[in-house]
Amino acid sequence: MKKLIKNVNIITPEGELRGCIGVDGKFIDYVGAAEPAGYDEVIDGKNGIATAGFVNAHAHLPMVLFRGYAEDMALQPWLFEKIFPAEDKLTPELVKWASRVAIAEMISGGTTSFSDMYYFCDEIIEAALESGIKANIARGVSAFAETDTSKLAAFRETEELFAKYNGAGDGRIKIDACLHSEYTNNEAVCRAMADYALEKGAVLHVHVSETETEHNECIGRHGLTPTAFLEKCGCYRSPVLAAHCVWVTDEDIAIMAANGASAAHNPSSNLKLGSGVAPVAKMLAAGVNVCLGSDGCSSNNNTDMFTELHFASLIAKGFARDPQALPSRQALALANVNGAKAQGRADTGVIEAGKRADIVIVGTDAPHMHPVYSAAVAVVQSARAADVRLTMVDGEVLYKDGEYKTLDVERAIFEMEKLVDKTYR
Amino acid sequence: MKKLIKNVNIITPEGELRGCIGVDGKFIDYVGAAEPAGYDEVIDGKNGIATAGFVNAHAHLPMVLFRGYAEDMALQPWLFEKIFPAEDKLTPELVKWASRVAIAEMISGGTTSFSDMYYFCDEIIEAALESGIKANIARGVSAFAETDTSKLAAFRETEELFAKYNGAGDGRIKIDACLHSEYTNNEAVCRAMADYALEKGAVLHVHVSETETEHNECIGRHGLTPTAFLEKCGCYRSPVLAAHCVWVTDEDIAIMAANGASAAHNPSSNLKLGSGVAPVAKMLAAGVNVCLGSDGCSSNNNTDMFTELHFASLIAKGFARDPQALPSRQALALANVNGAKAQGRADTGVIEAGKRADIVIVGTDAPHMHPVYSAAVAVVQSARAADVRLTMVDGEVLYKDGEYKTLDVERAIFEMEKLVDKTYR
Repeated sequence: MKKLIKNVNIITPEGELRGCIGVDGKFIDYVGAAEPAGYDEVIDGKNGIATAGFVNAHAHLPMVLFRGYAEDMALQPWLFEKIFPAEDKLTPELVKWASRVAIAEMISGGTTSFSDMYYFCDEIIEAALESGIKANIARGVSAFAETDTSKLAAFRETEELFAKYNGAGDGRIKIDACLHSEYTNNEAVCRAMADYALEKGAVLHVHVSETETEHNECIGRHGLTPTAFLEKCGCYRSPVLAAHCVWVTDEDIAIMAANGASAAHNPSSNLKLGSGVAPVAKMLAAGVNVCLGSDGCSSNNNTDMFTELHFASLIAKGFARDPQALPSRQALALANVNGAKAQGRADTGVIEAGKRADIVIVGTDAPHMHPVYSAAVAVVQSARAADVRLTMVDGEVLYKDGEYKTLDVERAIFEMEKLVDKTYR
Repeated sequence: MKKLIKNVNIITPEGELRGCIGVDGKFIDYVGAAEPAGYDEVIDGKNGIATAGFVNAHAHLPMVLFRGYAEDMALQPWLFEKIFPAEDKLTPELVKWASRVAIAEMISGGTTSFSDMYYFCDEIIEAALESGIKANIARGVSAFAETDTSKLAAFRETEELFAKYNGAGDGRIKIDACLHSEYTNNEAVCRAMADYALEKGAVLHVHVSETETEHNECIGRHGLTPTAFLEKCGCYRSPVLAAHCVWVTDEDIAIMAANGASAAHNPSSNLKLGSGVAPVAKMLAAGVNVCLGSDGCSSNNNTDMFTELHFASLIAKGFARDPQALPSRQALALANVNGAKAQGRADTGVIEAGKRADIVIVGTDAPHMHPVYSAAVAVVQSARAADVRLTMVDGEVLYKDGEYKTLDVERAIFEMEKLVDKTYR
């Protein structure tokens, strides 16, 4: 099935171009100013802005249930009095509906792929498959003192997920290897997961140096920063997706850059929890692949890449006291092509013939989208999730003009609210 | 005309209440759980959240023309190569249409009142009157070295604005006294405007300590901070609305608190221009009336109080490295009741019988508005401008379900774009 998107202002790797995007099956086959013939379906972009879809490179989807659940609390009571007890009540059914609500939020807000780290992964994956969105799924591994991986359910589940789901949905689903973090694991398990990631050729998703406390406690424990410790365990032989990286040192950054690692920057979460501000400019300058994430809804509170993108831009300028820091075009790359790289998806993240058709059209009708002098600036500095008119993944339209094409979102919200009433209110 | 808003979750001064809001003419006459009879029109809130309308306490409306016009530039070239030359091309017609586009953005995003500082004030006021929004209008005064106020067109215009428009629209329009800043004026003019503000019983709107450079240069010039200098000139005998306050000292804060001054916090602008982060927590603790503003669109790039509110909350927590800083309910007050105070409008800013009916209904249908555990948290941490379903000012509905009831917004956008094409592209 060939589709032509016409009347769009396209953000390309080179710049901006008004014209058409041709899609053949799952792939882009034309990007240009002309309106070529031979397409079965024509989608009128109505003068909107076409951008490569956003990648939410660090999420915990089921935590949408805890959106606004535990607010304005210090870290320890937040975790031990509210979040952990709430997580203890999770069931596959809660996760099933919550995942669909979270995916609906993402799809309607221009996110075409996400990297998740949690449990009840089957439910999350089934929701992703049903919706058509792309997902890298990691089973969070927190072994604590247990060094025997044969005794770890999370390890076993990871292996099962690889066997059952890796490559599912024509490659839309990828399974990542995972360590929750250094401080929730031990050296033996870290080494075992590092070997497993290498064997599977998988991305290794791990929380790194989110808080100053955990960073320093790791040094106290091992005489090494979390990054250096994970490197010692062999993790960096694989593509690492390091979430947060708020307190990474220059040496940590050098390790990441030398090993082609990615850093998922989660500006809203880091600020909301008082963790600090990640050294994004330093990491980019060193060649680290910096991408963007929302983290979980209990510390955001949304799953909205437009907000993360805008906020990352403002924080970079404000933190450096430099209005020239992280120009909008460079910021935009964090939200799509860098996220795609972090997921090991070299075939997407840009609007270019030969790439996967993961495309978002941002409407320009609303007052706040006038005037537009540059499409990239408008996307980063003015556009919002609600401006998204169309979200396409692998050439399939998942969302268009307020309608979800693949998910019964009303039902998901209804079912989730029923269970939330019973479980959490 | 009596209107009843039913089926809403109302954020009241005391807490949250599910029920109805009764409006009689311009005033709220009922807030409660019952559904009283005797109203001519019933508005179904459809389970949305009702909040007192937002006040944008610091704006430069015509700068909507420069939204995205000059990006990622250092301050001096930004001003001298782009912004000032662009401002030189402004005409009453450009301002007429741009003001309507900016007001449309505000109305559709839950803003019921704004405090503007600019010129071509007649055009801005006429747009506000036509739209039904409330506005405090200040004619920016930048006398530089001219000490004779009779030679200042801006002074004369201010007097004309007071005579012609103060109290217009049944009190919707108020004229503020104004000094652009200390660094664009001189002592004689500051003293003269301070006397004028006192004589008129007006708010005095002024930029204060936005950048470290201007703050320190003032000390170099006068041996006093901008706040102390303005106090010496007699400004603080009137209610001052001090915009930015990024670099105010503890002594400045004490002066503001002792004199009932307001500080308009502009988080997006301050970050985007690399100015710094205002000491909001300190100011609040000292009793300064802190409110929120968008500043001009060239340094934001929107006029969106939901974004300013959310960022103010996150920045307060991140800057203090404390997740308990500026709890959501307290942050919400910055956006409405504190802004109303800053405008000298004691009769609005809260949903309470006897107050003006300046009410916004935020829809809760979208995925990102599920689940809601607290209405105030949802408004600050999850809701976005596009969730606004209804905006009411003085009991009149200005915007409802995507329709503007008082402005021809399509025309305004069309006319503005035509002029922008001719003037700025």
